[in-house]
Parts: sequence; C-alpha cells; structure tokens
Amino acid sequence: MIIDENVHLQIGSLIFDGIDQIDVTGPFEVLSRLPNSTCRLFGASMSTVCDMHGLKLTPDAILSDSPQLDVLHIPGGAGQESLMDNEEVLGWIRAQAAEAKIVFSVCTGALICGAAGLIKGRRATTIWSAIDLLPYFGAIIVNERVVRDGNWFFTAGVTAGIDGALAVAAALRGQEVAETIQLAIAYAPEPPFNSGTVETASPAVLSVAQMSVRELSASRLKTAERVAERLGIKTKS
Amino acid sequence: MIIDENVHLQIGSLIFDGIDQIDVTGPFEVLSRLPNSTCRLFGASMSTVCDMHGLKLTPDAILSDSPQLDVLHIPGGAGQESLMDNEEVLGWIRAQAAEAKIVFSVCTGALICGAAGLIKGRRATTIWSAIDLLPYFGAIIVNERVVRDGNWFFTAGVTAGIDGALAVAAALRGQEVAETIQLAIAYAPEPPFNSGTVETASPAVLSVAQMSVRELSASRLKTAERVAERLGIKTKS
Repeated sequence: MIIDENVHLQIGSLIFDGIDQIDVTGPFEVLSRLPNSTCRLFGASMSTVCDMHGLKLTPDAILSDSPQLDVLHIPGGAGQESLMDNEEVLGWIRAQAAEAKIVFSVCTGALICGAAGLIKGRRATTIWSAIDLLPYFGAIIVNERVVRDGNWFFTAGVTAGIDGALAVAAALRGQEVAETIQLAIAYAPEPPFNSGTVETASPAVLSVAQMSVRELSASRLKTAERVAERLGIKTKS
Repeated sequence: MIIDENVHLQIGSLIFDGIDQIDVTGPFEVLSRLPNSTCRLFGASMSTVCDMHGLKLTPDAILSDSPQLDVLHIPGGAGQESLMDNEEVLGWIRAQAAEAKIVFSVCTGALICGAAGLIKGRRATTIWSAIDLLPYFGAIIVNERVVRDGNWFFTAGVTAGIDGALAVAAALRGQEVAETIQLAIAYAPEPPFNSGTVETASPAVLSVAQMSVRELSASRLKTAERVAERLGIKTKS
C-alpha cells in the first residue's frame, strides 16, 4: 500500500483523560517524521488531558474539526474504560476508520475500537493484562507484539506502539524511509532486564504487576461483557 | 544508592521549545511509575512548549518553583541549541545538580549540561550526530547506549532515554521495582529493522539521516567551540 510521496498524509491520534501517554508519544515520535505528512492530536474538547500518571497533552483540534485521516491512531490507557459507551468518540472512530488508509491501535486502544464494533473477526492484540478480553469484541487473539490484519495494525501494550509505528511507516512510505526514521530516533533498544513480557518476567514481578491492575482488569471485564451483549457477540462463559 | 522506599522522591524534567518530546515522555513513562515519587515537568515559563515536530508539552511549574530534585532529568532535541548560553536555565541546572541524587541526561541534554560546565572529565554519551562534540565540554566519549559515571547517567539519542530510565529506576528503588515497571510498560522491544545505530544502518539510510541534520550539526559545532572557549577547554583542532 505504499502511498506516492507526493500525496500528503493526514495522521491523527485520539487523546483523552487517563490515556497512557507513550501510547501516543511513542508513535508520534515515528509518524511525525514521515515525509509530506501532518501528525496531530484530536480531543473531544480543546482541554488539555492528563495521562494516567499526570503528563499533560494538549489537542491540536477537536474531533469534529478533523479532516478525513489517512492514519487513524487509537491509543489506550486506563482512561479507555470511560470511552467504551461514548457515542461521540465511537462514532468518530467508525466514520474515520471507514475511509482511513490505516487504522492503528496501540495497547487498549483495541478495546475502544472493539466497543465501536470494528474488530469483529479481526486478528488482534493488546496489552497482556487485557488480551483475554479481545473475544468479547469478536476478535481473534494473536499474542504478538505487532499484528497486521489487512489495513489494521494492532500492537501489544504501551511501548509496543513504537515498533508498530515503524511498521506503519514502512507500509506507507517504504522500508528505507522507516529505517531512516529508526536511525533518527536512535531506536536500537537495550532493555537492561528481560522483564517486558508475561512469559519472561519473574513470578514475583508478574505477581506485583498483576495485583496493580487487578481492579482495572475487573472493571474492564465487566465493561467487555456489557459491550459484547450490545454487539450481539456470544462468548464462552 | 538504593533510596529507602519511605523517602519520597522528587523527579523533575526540564522542558523547552524545540525539545525532542520522547526524550521527556520516554523517561516519564518509566520514572512516573516509581513508588513514592512525584514526577513533574519544569519550564522557564508556564507556557506550553512545542517539540521539534509540534507536540505540545505543558510544564507543571516554573524552574524557580521547583523543589530540590532527587532526579534531575535533562532532555535534548534541536531546541537545546537555544539554551547553551541561557544563564537562567544553566544556573538552575547547576544548582539542582549540586544536590541531586541522580543527574540524568538524555540525547543532547548532555550538551546543555556541558554548557553548564558540569561534564568536564566525565564519561558521557549523546546522540550519534553530536557525540563528537562531547570533548568540547571536557567529557570523554563513551559510545554506549547508557553510560553511568558516579551519580550521573547519560544516554545516547532519543529513545535511549527509556533504557536509561530503567537503569535509573533500578539504581533508586532496586532491580525488582525496575523489572515491574518494565512489565507494566510491556517493554520487550522488537524493532522491525536493524537501523537504529550508525554502525548498523545501511549507507543509503545513514547518508539521508546525516544530510537531514547537517545544518543543525554545523550550528552545534560552532556553539560547542564558543562554549569550549568560555569554559577554558582546549580541544585539538
């Protein structure tokens, strides 16, 4: 799907209170470097939003002022829960996704897209703590860091958005452009520990991490059950 | 230097116009999850700043309202150039660094710290496009992604701040805490290409990346020469 470099690309990210900020800022670091493109943040209002840990992000425009986006980027974070029945946001996502060249979900952005009824039958992923919920939205779990299904790209949790954005960049403008961006952002990661997945973390670390999201996970499950009913999706229970 | 978990940690990042946003938001993602800590952004004024590619970051407070920081975090980006003779900012960095438990430089934050006269004799690193300038500030080049020199942590460019922040987290609160953060942010990177360093990028990619920073690099060299003279540092020329 390489897009001619003379075609200007409109790239837009949804932001909201309680977002996990690197779900947006990681991909922004990559996608804002795409030649001949505009990369902006869109909010339900022009108010600054606060991320899960207090970082302030300011929208460039409100949802209703967005052009048709070529790349629709939906991030996640704990605040995703409050959007799951928000018809203004879900309707915007549906309308944009219908014409976008790429829809790019990071972390629990997949659940928001799911609540919009858009991931039925899709191969998808999300953060480890929410991945079991994907079937409630009709999606097929793929436990990989970046999952492509047609013109949809899904990533696992949080920092996986950087890897996913490089894949999106390559799909839009070719591998050499994506590699040049990778060098510009010096993306040759060297995590000091090997604790970034459920499979590699120590039992002690996994247990602490699971405890810290227990309440959120319970709430997400209840929401997923309710949305599944609204969407008419049957899940084993 | 593990700090007792009952001791509250004040963590502060400098922000400025023309910052490279992930130099701040990458470390924020890690450090804001440290138990018993406060993580805030400080600006010369309360105005929102624009990153190199237009992302807006809003300070939590102005420099003069900052408490003594336990972690002083200095990011970089093209806008670093405009701070190299800014005595308000350089003086703040000197005062904070004198008492901070850790000074944490990301990318060309090292040049700002250098302009403050703080990296003489230190083993240091910065982004590949500026690493040759470190001797102008009296530092010793170490071409590694994360370099520790006593209570100073330096990282290579841009996304290296995430790796560095995990090292800082481990130094402050122990490895298990850092590993739990790594799992929470799903940091198990899988770059789709191997182009993140000068050594691994293809000649074509390296050439494009070098061209794109040629003007900035020329300006940084001139500034480094001027600062070296001010600091009384002799460099081979």
